[in-house]
Amino acid sequence: MAMMTKTEYVASLSAMKKRVFIMGQEVENLADHPLVRPSLNACAMTYELAQQPAHADWMLATSNLTGQKVNRFTHLHQNAADLVAKIKMQRLLGQSTGCCFQRCVGMDAFNALDSVTYEVDQALGTRYHPRFRQYLQYVQEHDLVVDGAMTDAKGDRRLKPSQQADPDLFVHIVDRGPAGIVLRGAKLHQTGALNSHEIIVMPTLTLAEEDRDYAVACAIPADARGVLMIYGRQPSDTRKLEDSQIDVGNREFGGHEAVIILQDVFVPWERVFMAGEYAFSGLLVERFAGYHRQSYGGCKSGVGDVLIGAAQSLAQIQGTDKASHIKDKIVEMIHLNETLYACGIACSAEGQPTASGTYLIDLLLANVCKLNVTRFPYEIARLAQDIAGGLLVTLPSEKDLANPQTGPYLEKYLRSAEHHSTEERCRMLRLVENLTLGPGAAAYLAESMHGAGSPQAQRIMLARLADLEGRVRLARRLAGVNDSGTD
Amino acid sequence: MAMMTKTEYVASLSAMKKRVFIMGQEVENLADHPLVRPSLNACAMTYELAQQPAHADWMLATSNLTGQKVNRFTHLHQNAADLVAKIKMQRLLGQSTGCCFQRCVGMDAFNALDSVTYEVDQALGTRYHPRFRQYLQYVQEHDLVVDGAMTDAKGDRRLKPSQQADPDLFVHIVDRGPAGIVLRGAKLHQTGALNSHEIIVMPTLTLAEEDRDYAVACAIPADARGVLMIYGRQPSDTRKLEDSQIDVGNREFGGHEAVIILQDVFVPWERVFMAGEYAFSGLLVERFAGYHRQSYGGCKSGVGDVLIGAAQSLAQIQGTDKASHIKDKIVEMIHLNETLYACGIACSAEGQPTASGTYLIDLLLANVCKLNVTRFPYEIARLAQDIAGGLLVTLPSEKDLANPQTGPYLEKYLRSAEHHSTEERCRMLRLVENLTLGPGAAAYLAESMHGAGSPQAQRIMLARLADLEGRVRLARRLAGVNDSGTD
Amino acid sequence: MAMMTKTEYVASLSAMKKRVFIMGQEVENLADHPLVRPSLNACAMTYELAQQPAHADWMLATSNLTGQKVNRFTHLHQNAADLVAKIKMQRLLGQSTGCCFQRCVGMDAFNALDSVTYEVDQALGTRYHPRFRQYLQYVQEHDLVVDGAMTDAKGDRRLKPSQQADPDLFVHIVDRGPAGIVLRGAKLHQTGALNSHEIIVMPTLTLAEEDRDYAVACAIPADARGVLMIYGRQPSDTRKLEDSQIDVGNREFGGHEAVIILQDVFVPWERVFMAGEYAFSGLLVERFAGYHRQSYGGCKSGVGDVLIGAAQSLAQIQGTDKASHIKDKIVEMIHLNETLYACGIACSAEGQPTASGTYLIDLLLANVCKLNVTRFPYEIARLAQDIAGGLLVTLPSEKDLANPQTGPYLEKYLRSAEHHSTEERCRMLRLVENLTLGPGAAAYLAESMHGAGSPQAQRIMLARLADLEGRVRLARRLAGVNDSGTD
Amino acid sequence: MAMMTKTEYVASLSAMKKRVFIMGQEVENLADHPLVRPSLNACAMTYELAQQPAHADWMLATSNLTGQKVNRFTHLHQNAADLVAKIKMQRLLGQSTGCCFQRCVGMDAFNALDSVTYEVDQALGTRYHPRFRQYLQYVQEHDLVVDGAMTDAKGDRRLKPSQQADPDLFVHIVDRGPAGIVLRGAKLHQTGALNSHEIIVMPTLTLAEEDRDYAVACAIPADARGVLMIYGRQPSDTRKLEDSQIDVGNREFGGHEAVIILQDVFVPWERVFMAGEYAFSGLLVERFAGYHRQSYGGCKSGVGDVLIGAAQSLAQIQGTDKASHIKDKIVEMIHLNETLYACGIACSAEGQPTASGTYLIDLLLANVCKLNVTRFPYEIARLAQDIAGGLLVTLPSEKDLANPQTGPYLEKYLRSAEHHSTEERCRMLRLVENLTLGPGAAAYLAESMHGAGSPQAQRIMLARLADLEGRVRLARRLAGVNDSGTD
Repeated sequence: MAMMTKTEYVASLSAMKKRVFIMGQEVENLADHPLVRPSLNACAMTYELAQQPAHADWMLATSNLTGQKVNRFTHLHQNAADLVAKIKMQRLLGQSTGCCFQRCVGMDAFNALDSVTYEVDQALGTRYHPRFRQYLQYVQEHDLVVDGAMTDAKGDRRLKPSQQADPDLFVHIVDRGPAGIVLRGAKLHQTGALNSHEIIVMPTLTLAEEDRDYAVACAIPADARGVLMIYGRQPSDTRKLEDSQIDVGNREFGGHEAVIILQDVFVPWERVFMAGEYAFSGLLVERFAGYHRQSYGGCKSGVGDVLIGAAQSLAQIQGTDKASHIKDKIVEMIHLNETLYACGIACSAEGQPTASGTYLIDLLLANVCKLNVTRFPYEIARLAQDIAGGLLVTLPSEKDLANPQTGPYLEKYLRSAEHHSTEERCRMLRLVENLTLGPGAAAYLAESMHGAGSPQAQRIMLARLADLEGRVRLARRLAGVNDSGTD
Repeated sequence: MAMMTKTEYVASLSAMKKRVFIMGQEVENLADHPLVRPSLNACAMTYELAQQPAHADWMLATSNLTGQKVNRFTHLHQNAADLVAKIKMQRLLGQSTGCCFQRCVGMDAFNALDSVTYEVDQALGTRYHPRFRQYLQYVQEHDLVVDGAMTDAKGDRRLKPSQQADPDLFVHIVDRGPAGIVLRGAKLHQTGALNSHEIIVMPTLTLAEEDRDYAVACAIPADARGVLMIYGRQPSDTRKLEDSQIDVGNREFGGHEAVIILQDVFVPWERVFMAGEYAFSGLLVERFAGYHRQSYGGCKSGVGDVLIGAAQSLAQIQGTDKASHIKDKIVEMIHLNETLYACGIACSAEGQPTASGTYLIDLLLANVCKLNVTRFPYEIARLAQDIAGGLLVTLPSEKDLANPQTGPYLEKYLRSAEHHSTEERCRMLRLVENLTLGPGAAAYLAESMHGAGSPQAQRIMLARLADLEGRVRLARRLAGVNDSGTD
Repeated sequence: MAMMTKTEYVASLSAMKKRVFIMGQEVENLADHPLVRPSLNACAMTYELAQQPAHADWMLATSNLTGQKVNRFTHLHQNAADLVAKIKMQRLLGQSTGCCFQRCVGMDAFNALDSVTYEVDQALGTRYHPRFRQYLQYVQEHDLVVDGAMTDAKGDRRLKPSQQADPDLFVHIVDRGPAGIVLRGAKLHQTGALNSHEIIVMPTLTLAEEDRDYAVACAIPADARGVLMIYGRQPSDTRKLEDSQIDVGNREFGGHEAVIILQDVFVPWERVFMAGEYAFSGLLVERFAGYHRQSYGGCKSGVGDVLIGAAQSLAQIQGTDKASHIKDKIVEMIHLNETLYACGIACSAEGQPTASGTYLIDLLLANVCKLNVTRFPYEIARLAQDIAGGLLVTLPSEKDLANPQTGPYLEKYLRSAEHHSTEERCRMLRLVENLTLGPGAAAYLAESMHGAGSPQAQRIMLARLADLEGRVRLARRLAGVNDSGTD
Repeated sequence: MAMMTKTEYVASLSAMKKRVFIMGQEVENLADHPLVRPSLNACAMTYELAQQPAHADWMLATSNLTGQKVNRFTHLHQNAADLVAKIKMQRLLGQSTGCCFQRCVGMDAFNALDSVTYEVDQALGTRYHPRFRQYLQYVQEHDLVVDGAMTDAKGDRRLKPSQQADPDLFVHIVDRGPAGIVLRGAKLHQTGALNSHEIIVMPTLTLAEEDRDYAVACAIPADARGVLMIYGRQPSDTRKLEDSQIDVGNREFGGHEAVIILQDVFVPWERVFMAGEYAFSGLLVERFAGYHRQSYGGCKSGVGDVLIGAAQSLAQIQGTDKASHIKDKIVEMIHLNETLYACGIACSAEGQPTASGTYLIDLLLANVCKLNVTRFPYEIARLAQDIAGGLLVTLPSEKDLANPQTGPYLEKYLRSAEHHSTEERCRMLRLVENLTLGPGAAAYLAESMHGAGSPQAQRIMLARLADLEGRVRLARRLAGVNDSGTD
């Protein structure tokens, strides 16, 4: 059976022996940890929605490897419609969780590795592609969550990997043997690492020959010997420890990030997809980043829908929803959010096949998509705070609502439009706080900025992909300038 | 033969007897008039490029009416790929002309009328749709340019048509007879009117029963008795009268707008596609506007390409193209321009069939597209002026370049980087002036703002089309608010 | 002696018996509470800097009431230079604390009340002004912190105070006697309430005759019988409870807000400055808001300086400070921040005397100042997050740095440019997190949006204060339109 | 008598023998040339308003050289109030003319030269300052218009003056003799050159020792032998030749720019204020640019007032002025415009004395002012076009209004709200066209971008003037980072 239920997924994770540290403590039972559980719930939605017939078009796909129905998160895109369906799936999940559901990175890694290993094999006579496809078949059959691990520690940004004072600041092969390779280094910003079955390691930048040992891609079980995860803090994270019903904002869902330490991790050759082919490292980075920049047009517009809904809900509660300036701000939020979605759709619909048959988004438009994602969510969040009012950051604790000495006063004085309760108002304010100043903002804002590469990375790609000289020729022709400079 | 050459097109226009006034003079030989010729050239490019095999995928389509190859400007979109091809055709033409090529309005009118007449017939038992298709077959077979005439004079914006002091401020039926109807009124902002064979009249807003005589759609030969056109001025328009080679900026191409007066024009019934069905007027406006809002994602990104090319060219000429702030501005221009294109692609790729089989864009995304068009070209133009430098508005006339007393000084002192001539620099500056402060700016800026409806029209559509209550439900679920306001 | 030391200030607060609830608990020893102490430190800086000769020009003023040197926070502005000095004092304090230092509201209330009570007395023959000045002399002599309490609960925004289902949703006089009045209601968003000696109550909007009992201004000791304060939560507030050295971001300083409940509080007549003069309520609101909108040009540009410094510091640590795109973002942050400051200076320098002799800022420019404050800090914060990198929201806890199993790995892998320690990097990231996503963001972003009135309040003032018809006349004259519509 | 009437000013110009070319023709009677007259009218307003007692505070000043009342355009600022009065004078003139009135450049040159010559004399023992003051006294006594000529041709932007292929691409001293120096080169973008009595030449950038002959400042009569002026074109400039009453937009006023050729112009030593002191060239550029960046906060906000008035007028005419989205756009225009003014006021109010006693604006804030001027007028113009509607670029010629065959139709169909005539509507549309797409836009947009230095020049100054390390220290202190990187 190719697909797991949500329950099976949680059980499968519990069976693993990951080494994880959270706020200074090593944690045994991850699934029950209140700082992890919301993120597990979010990732589990990728299983739950896949079981719902209403969402089958978007959540499921027919594997080109086996002909079986698989969860789209494990699928190789076979046409532009697959790429478009990916965006719609991501928007649905963003709408359903109001946070990062963490499973996209692996999907984007699969698709990038598929075409790149194929092209490496074509160029160099290696056999990575069949090996990768065999691994992916395993992932599909077991319906696994795979962490795509790209970002290295990087040290001094002005130095190449082998120039760094510490050679481990980029993950590299420290030993090669007949059975496999040994890896050392760390990967930062690993979204959903604690909820993953597997880790796919990839290089983080274009490499030159002297850095060939850094040109490594491979798959590692998330609980392999030598793998250690350190949980990253988020704004207001510990509200999840308060047994909060209201103040946490989004009680059921959240995300998380982790640092993954790879301390001499052994990887057998059948799980190695690149080992020294430095000339293809840039291509892998570019394709993975391209797919992931596409992704943000889906997931972030889904979270944007939640924030728009929360702002509109607060306007209704506070009796301001008919004010023209409020309606105008809501329209502006919609406009910006749909622009993100449009860019996600456009780079998908314009997708083209690679040599391996797997479809690649239009890279230029995917970078345009992501560059907008580094801007518009901030403006949407600003508008949401405008509509929410100052109470967003002055609201007392839910414990004050519950305290008999203060609760009745708050109930009385925080009451707004008649048919909405004070508690409803507080809950909605906390959701906006979560998304714009709390753990949700880590994903909706800072991750929108830096995930899949910071804005400057997109700008560099735009400069590279846009045919600037072609545009100069258009202008010269219309201006009547010929090759010698005149007409 | 379904398609004309450029030469045949010009000849076909010359055979017509339009009544046209330009700057106070009635004009006989339109094609030779220097204020009209550049716009005729631009429109003629829709014929010329259709003859080039390289562009066949975009410029041509197979008619669903006849099975013949036709110019895409006369085609009914049969699938989402047709809608996408339309955008690419428009971008190509924008790139090729650097201005408005005027033939889109008719195409958008055809597609809107096709589905609306079908639905009117279905609802009311009328026979408009077959009549319209017969007319369109005639258009396809003769490869005609058709002006889509929607915007009425409107008078006092707070009053409905029949409430206006003057009943003619909106075009209306003043007489109905067995042979046809008689129209009176005026249509403003008629892009390319002088270059059109035909005019399709449509209502300009949603009408109520008391305004049923204003609910009229029909086709009129552009030289029909009672039709009078008055040419609209554009910034720096008379440079075209200076026999200028340089100062005109874009010597070969331009656009134009006209007021069309309909002074008791008779229209036979076989050319009438709506006559009183007021309940469908809003639908026709919405669909036409939707198609036309899509269009701007294509044509304006094509003109944007020219402006980006001109700015980059000036940076090269002036030796600033390697400066990091200049490169960054060029990237920003590309980013904004591609966002417009992405929105055009997205609303097309998400197109769906109407009841008549003709495909309609995603209306929400088409409005998002246009709303971005009301903003980004202005910022692109601002950045182009930044890169161009102050000489953009202080450059002497080309006559000073030619004058032996001043020319050598200008040649000497306006010289910049070595391998570019002073004349080249002047030509490129004039192109940027044309596009940002001249006749090109009328199309690239002001028409981007108001064409297919001013920004507020798009905002109203966004408010109407976005499922705001659905978003409120998403937020309530995540905030733990149930129907009684609590969890 | 008119001025207290920081130590005396803290002691004076400890001598008070305020009723305060924090997160569901009534708190006795406020000064030692870890959620309050940072805000107390920030407010205490208004005392500490006043003792430093280097800052005397800005921190001190010569009282027009007594001729004594007083802390400027208790001073009535006697000329435009005083208004400018206020802005410089606020910027200094923002720079020194990186947060809201809470003492401005009282200062702004004094200055507004001074001129308004004077004008009320002139118009109605009352004796509020001498009474107010006597009270202010007491404040100056004891160097008190006074909370200016304006914002009411407001209930349904569409209804006036007396129309609300609950008459207490705006603070009002529930009893008048020979000795004084009795107040009931609540004031929301009370910045620094826990650190105040006194509360000055003011009406929150323009009132009509039927709401005359809501037209009340008076002074109340912060520990008066019937006063109850409920602490408002902030993002990541409980990091202050973690005994954190690093994760808290700004260890020493913070702000706070509270809800103040006024449950039948008696106020003797000598402390009452308005009691029913509804016709002047709007004037009081407008002047207080004006002064407070000016204030934000000072304090927020000071906090902006800290954030700019933190971003630049991170760029240095990460080795990116020489990259042109980073330098450009820093320049943009400076530009936006200095624009805020410029607006603060401008409305001050253009100040004019009121009838009482106290100087009032230029109201139009003060509203312009605040409207920019509702925008630019958000963009500055976005740019800071851009420069900071993704680690901003993925950095593990300081407890992981301290844990011997994880600390060495983090020390190794989070190391960046050589001469900066990992801890330094973490501290600086946490400061940026504090200011853009943490408790600092409550003040730097949400309070910038809503403090002294939400942006729409400023827009309404701009529409009212700008001489729009005068501008129409300018245009008509240049266009050659005379009074009959033509020239 | 120190001041001329407007009539005397025009007569004084007519008495000069300037060599001027306009569109390829040498022109004799400049004052009667329809392309020059509007700009002469604008400059003459600096004389006319100086005669009006109502404006005396702003237009007049008491000379520190003679104790006489002089036109403020010839005055050395003696205190911050003078700097503020300058801004108010400029706003008044922008409001009165709706264009560039051209006399600021000389005023800014005087003030920059005064302090720099003083400091040169102090440092090097030269005698430039008394010489300059004597010259300025002459200017004051004759109430002259002086063109401040800074911008050189520059050639290849990557090369220094002496490295250029042609040594004349920057103005330089080609001969020195006992009586004076001889200059060669050209100055571009010379605002109001044709209306000036005098030209003050200044270097355009910081120079090194090898370029000492380029370090030259001096005064030249505008009709000196060897001076030749070539008029620069503007958008729609030739509408001024059409004998237009309406289409010209701003019939009475305009601006102009010219290229000034200096072909071996002799300058006697008593008019030379710098001749080789290269080490002070940068200081002169910086101060002149600073004063001129301040200026734009005044003049452009004045023109902005006219554009806001025109937009509001059109909204009234078209019956849309009560629509909430229109009102909101008007408020936004006001807000942006007043922000420019606030920056102009702030850098003035913060002015400080230089060593010569002449006051200098706060340079950082003056650069902030100008950087905003490179942005906000573009957005104000965009909003004006939004409000104006599409007719802005489709309106027929006034000759069509006059033609009996078309005029009645246009009168009928372009009629809008009842009490406004069609002509009034047309006039107001043409004014908006003038300011956003016509000759007015050359000044309001492109000159706002490049005048007093392009935006990158301001950014470089911000980077240099802002105390970035001071801000880093603020952040380090709050983050608890001490000099060794930890607390």
